[in-house]
Amino acid sequence: MPVRLDRSSADFDQRFGAFLAAKREASADVEAAARAIVDDVAKRGDAALLEATAKFDRLTLDASDLRVTAAEIEAAVKACDAATLDALKLARDRIETYHRRQLPKDERFTDQLGVELGWRYTAIESAGLYVPGGTAAYPSSVLMNAVPAKVAGVTRLVMVVPSPDGKLNPLVLAAAKLGGVTEIYRVGGAQAVAALAHGTATIAPVAKIIGPGNAYVAAAKRLVFGKVGIDMIAGPSEVLVIADDTGNADWIAADLLAQAEHDASAQSILITDSARLAADVEKAVEAQLKTLPRAVIASASWADFGAIIMVKNLNDAIPLADAIAAEHLEIMTQDPDALAAKIRNAGAVFLGPHTPEAIGDYVGGSNHVLPTARSARFSSGLSVHDFLKRTSILKCGPDQLRALGPAAMILGKAEGLDAHSRSIGLRLNLS
Amino acid sequence: MPVRLDRSSADFDQRFGAFLAAKREASADVEAAARAIVDDVAKRGDAALLEATAKFDRLTLDASDLRVTAAEIEAAVKACDAATLDALKLARDRIETYHRRQLPKDERFTDQLGVELGWRYTAIESAGLYVPGGTAAYPSSVLMNAVPAKVAGVTRLVMVVPSPDGKLNPLVLAAAKLGGVTEIYRVGGAQAVAALAHGTATIAPVAKIIGPGNAYVAAAKRLVFGKVGIDMIAGPSEVLVIADDTGNADWIAADLLAQAEHDASAQSILITDSARLAADVEKAVEAQLKTLPRAVIASASWADFGAIIMVKNLNDAIPLADAIAAEHLEIMTQDPDALAAKIRNAGAVFLGPHTPEAIGDYVGGSNHVLPTARSARFSSGLSVHDFLKRTSILKCGPDQLRALGPAAMILGKAEGLDAHSRSIGLRLNLS
Repeated sequence: MPVRLDRSSADFDQRFGAFLAAKREASADVEAAARAIVDDVAKRGDAALLEATAKFDRLTLDASDLRVTAAEIEAAVKACDAATLDALKLARDRIETYHRRQLPKDERFTDQLGVELGWRYTAIESAGLYVPGGTAAYPSSVLMNAVPAKVAGVTRLVMVVPSPDGKLNPLVLAAAKLGGVTEIYRVGGAQAVAALAHGTATIAPVAKIIGPGNAYVAAAKRLVFGKVGIDMIAGPSEVLVIADDTGNADWIAADLLAQAEHDASAQSILITDSARLAADVEKAVEAQLKTLPRAVIASASWADFGAIIMVKNLNDAIPLADAIAAEHLEIMTQDPDALAAKIRNAGAVFLGPHTPEAIGDYVGGSNHVLPTARSARFSSGLSVHDFLKRTSILKCGPDQLRALGPAAMILGKAEGLDAHSRSIGLRLNLS
Repeated sequence: MPVRLDRSSADFDQRFGAFLAAKREASADVEAAARAIVDDVAKRGDAALLEATAKFDRLTLDASDLRVTAAEIEAAVKACDAATLDALKLARDRIETYHRRQLPKDERFTDQLGVELGWRYTAIESAGLYVPGGTAAYPSSVLMNAVPAKVAGVTRLVMVVPSPDGKLNPLVLAAAKLGGVTEIYRVGGAQAVAALAHGTATIAPVAKIIGPGNAYVAAAKRLVFGKVGIDMIAGPSEVLVIADDTGNADWIAADLLAQAEHDASAQSILITDSARLAADVEKAVEAQLKTLPRAVIASASWADFGAIIMVKNLNDAIPLADAIAAEHLEIMTQDPDALAAKIRNAGAVFLGPHTPEAIGDYVGGSNHVLPTARSARFSSGLSVHDFLKRTSILKCGPDQLRALGPAAMILGKAEGLDAHSRSIGLRLNLS
């Protein structure tokens, strides 16, 4: 049974606090194991990578087998259903259009003193995209990670994907091709992250590693952070639905279950001011679970981490939504835009009854790689910005240096950095 | 003696590769020690924080002493030299003006299908600013971290600064006040990072932690990453000067030393096509070192990590500069703008002979918190973006759901996520 909380009950704050603090994932301490693998690949390169692949993926390869060939990719594309390929192409095109709008402009201006200032954006030269194997191999995620990189201008986009027992998902290879991936290697785990960060004879190192993975992948990313850039550490996924009495209980139940089916540690939450709707949604969830293929996963998620929170009025939902900071926020109320404008922390908002979150997962155009586990309080979904960097620009002439130099010299001296002051004083004949 | 490399020598690639790969900091493994401190503060709160402060800062406090009082801050401001305060104010104002231009615009648009899309920026609610104590306590860094946060709209800006033996730098407190810091606590090290991330009875947790620190601070930030946001892990600082025969050897030498005086592991590099200039710069460095207060540090940095790289022509400097990916890049050539435009990887560029890097450290207006140790290949200097997050927006009506739904349903089924497909099909009467 999901948790039921009532904003007006005396112990609400305490129970809501406990609900927020509850961990949804066993934080297995795999740091030591990941570190050993990363260090080994950093030291021994391909040999260590091949050994780890034999051990963890039960796949014996030579270095010359690591890269997925163009012929294999072509064969995979041919093996895909035409309608599915068309759907992937639609997704690709819409993701590309949306993300093109994110491209920032360079800036250059001259201030009142005549100082020239500004900044310039350039793309990261190379990026590595980690794609999980097995059941969590989602072609849509390949597009969501690859397309913003290509839009940003990344020239070398390397994908790693484990092929346990030699199996690769053809749709994942097809999505890689559609997304503009330039190299694919059949490796995964901490060893793949290490290869991308440190490079091997076969895999040249990249500047940044993105994409979700298991606990070993997450630990490896944390270890190589600094040597290369990384994206967020992905946690279990969640949806928050805020609905009033106009909400359709069946639709809301379906959306809660679409989240719950991902993973037993996924989380689905409903906040409503309608006791009638809350009751109807609970019934609808139970009814729909009966025929859901992934009912075991979805019902575990709903029972262990699901929640229905009652509020007296919808304004009370705002601070709760900000505290939850949901990855996905669906608003199905009479005026969803007005409510959304008051909420600060959410990865993505889906407005109105006709915007199920699943549209955003696939073909909306916005990115489905979003901050999980309350990290929308401080981070954003994946975007072209993750593949760009900004160089700041400063240019003084003699007059500007004369105007600004003395203050900088005072601060240099105050900080005990005399060579800083001298580098200015020498130019102004002040030293 | 600094390294001397010549682009035209047969072993250049090998020697340049070794130069790039050389570590400038002993990577002391302090992870276990930092983890013990972080876990203790997470568990025991103020008690653990106070014990660690007594141990590492030799300062016995009660919880009620942790926060620096308004009276102490006022007294610190009064203790500061008036000219230095004026210089800090000039810096503050220029940093604010520059960073205001970085504020991004929200976006909302309707595509050809009638789907409403866009994104909205909001400020992070609270941020923690780590400020090192002792000799590395720089008031300018307080401004560089605090001002962008305030410009972004962060309401709660908490500063932690260790006070070894009870000592605090008045200029640091004055800069905090000028920068809009709202709370200051006299704690440092891994214990301060833990308090900011996990919260204690006295220090409420923040959503993101920024600011440089020693190896323990860096390790603690790495450990709490995910629970809270963090900025980059700062490494030793560096400057790359590219100059041609028009360069002034004394000015260049002064700039190389301004970098070298920071830290024995700082790095100063000159790339030039002029053998005459290279020789003159070396002589000028030696001459200026004789009268420099921090000569011991600067000469160690120059001897151990300094480099002069000869190239046949300036175009050869471009790939070298991109590989070095310097935190600071000074260009003193006949056409610095043209050369800068061809270089992709640099934290900040300083154009022309009248723009010593020290101007950017203090009063240029651009941020001096920049990516070090080659991380300009994948990251950017601190900006208002580090204190903002983006929520994506999606809104379909019935027509748009009808147009996009079937493709999303195909992809949901292809990924084995039937509840995803159903959440759409139910609305379209297709399930």
